[in-house]
Amino acid sequence: MAWNMLSPTIILVRPQLGENIGMVARAMWNFGLRELRLVSPRDGWPNPAAGPPAAGADVVLDEAQVFETVKSAVADCAILYATTIRQRDMLKEVVTARRMVEETSPVLAQGQKVGLMFGPERSGLETDDVALAHKILTVPVNPAFGSLNLSQAVILCAYEWFQSQTDAPPCELHGDYEGPATHDALEGLIAHIDNDLSQGDYYFPEHRADAMRRTLRGIFTRPQFTTQEVRTLRGIIKALSGNRKS
Amino acid sequence: MAWNMLSPTIILVRPQLGENIGMVARAMWNFGLRELRLVSPRDGWPNPAAGPPAAGADVVLDEAQVFETVKSAVADCAILYATTIRQRDMLKEVVTARRMVEETSPVLAQGQKVGLMFGPERSGLETDDVALAHKILTVPVNPAFGSLNLSQAVILCAYEWFQSQTDAPPCELHGDYEGPATHDALEGLIAHIDNDLSQGDYYFPEHRADAMRRTLRGIFTRPQFTTQEVRTLRGIIKALSGNRKS
Repeated sequence: MAWNMLSPTIILVRPQLGENIGMVARAMWNFGLRELRLVSPRDGWPNPAAGPPAAGADVVLDEAQVFETVKSAVADCAILYATTIRQRDMLKEVVTARRMVEETSPVLAQGQKVGLMFGPERSGLETDDVALAHKILTVPVNPAFGSLNLSQAVILCAYEWFQSQTDAPPCELHGDYEGPATHDALEGLIAHIDNDLSQGDYYFPEHRADAMRRTLRGIFTRPQFTTQEVRTLRGIIKALSGNRKS
Repeated sequence: MAWNMLSPTIILVRPQLGENIGMVARAMWNFGLRELRLVSPRDGWPNPAAGPPAAGADVVLDEAQVFETVKSAVADCAILYATTIRQRDMLKEVVTARRMVEETSPVLAQGQKVGLMFGPERSGLETDDVALAHKILTVPVNPAFGSLNLSQAVILCAYEWFQSQTDAPPCELHGDYEGPATHDALEGLIAHIDNDLSQGDYYFPEHRADAMRRTLRGIFTRPQFTTQEVRTLRGIIKALSGNRKS
């Protein structure tokens, strides 16, 4: 199979065992996913322990990119999913793997990146990582036994994507849709608002500031604003802050 | 979840590694499959190596049945599938996991057994084993890298079966979702922004003002902000406009 560039990017956040990274690579390549990103892997990278379990999916390991922070790893993603089975106190849409594949197909078709974040084996993603995502990706499992192995969680997403490539009718959107802005552009908007708010007395009382920042992030992340919308919003913020000395 | 007896039976033919049997048990129980049969496992049974990778799916291991021959293990199956990726010189229907789930649902509903056979890790099923099956079960994979780990092959079948059992909505919302704000509340927000912007030079040039207002309305309407989000946004607008004389 010629590799289809238009496939999701797997982002492992602080993965612990090299063996699991290798199994993830194998699972990805079984279903034609190739782009793997590692955010500060516990045992460094490259990690020889990943080789044997990859069972020949060397191309995925060889091309894996390493990042120090989640933010840098997701910067170019137009849409970002956090996988988690725990309930979070965040207003985010929760979608199944199958649904994710359906709804990202027009985004991928435009050459934009779709990021799927998976947390460390033991603990899963931290709340601050989940907060970065547009949506939560979940796989309905036996409620009495929900602990999916990391590579199993990855293979189910990869499998669903591959199924969509072989069967499903293409999905399209009405209107002149340019797709969501990159994560970087979104961060720029959030930083802009945050900066302007920090100059007044918005973040008060002090001990509520973190929660207020998370709320703000949630409000501006969920809508999946397009690049043009982000640009307009920045213009609006600038105009609103206009007469203030900054 | 109460266990649904009406689920496929997983039959591992001459499995080699205890670790893999444990991972298969975990994969099965993740998706509510409970009945595991082992045909002459290489290292005997019970095998302590299976415990840790099962990660708590002990019920599957404890109830696993051991058989000496494939024929005895499949004797009570009403329909039997052989999983294989190799081409066989046999006239048998080849179905995907999804199709298998669809077509076996009436069989299971009658209390009959559906058997899914998986071969040894290294070599897969022998031709004589495949010959026993009614059909061949296959999962379309990357033709360049078709080697699925045993537990991965099992989980994909279990996953498809579980999907067919749940009417889980493809997407829902995490967090305390109160639904979108009323139209009135939204209008209040838009009027608030519009008012503040009108006091600066945002709507310039004049003849573009209507289009700019439409864009602004679009941006704040599409996300279906909740009442709480609208309230927060108004706080943000107020803070941003803060030092301005209004």
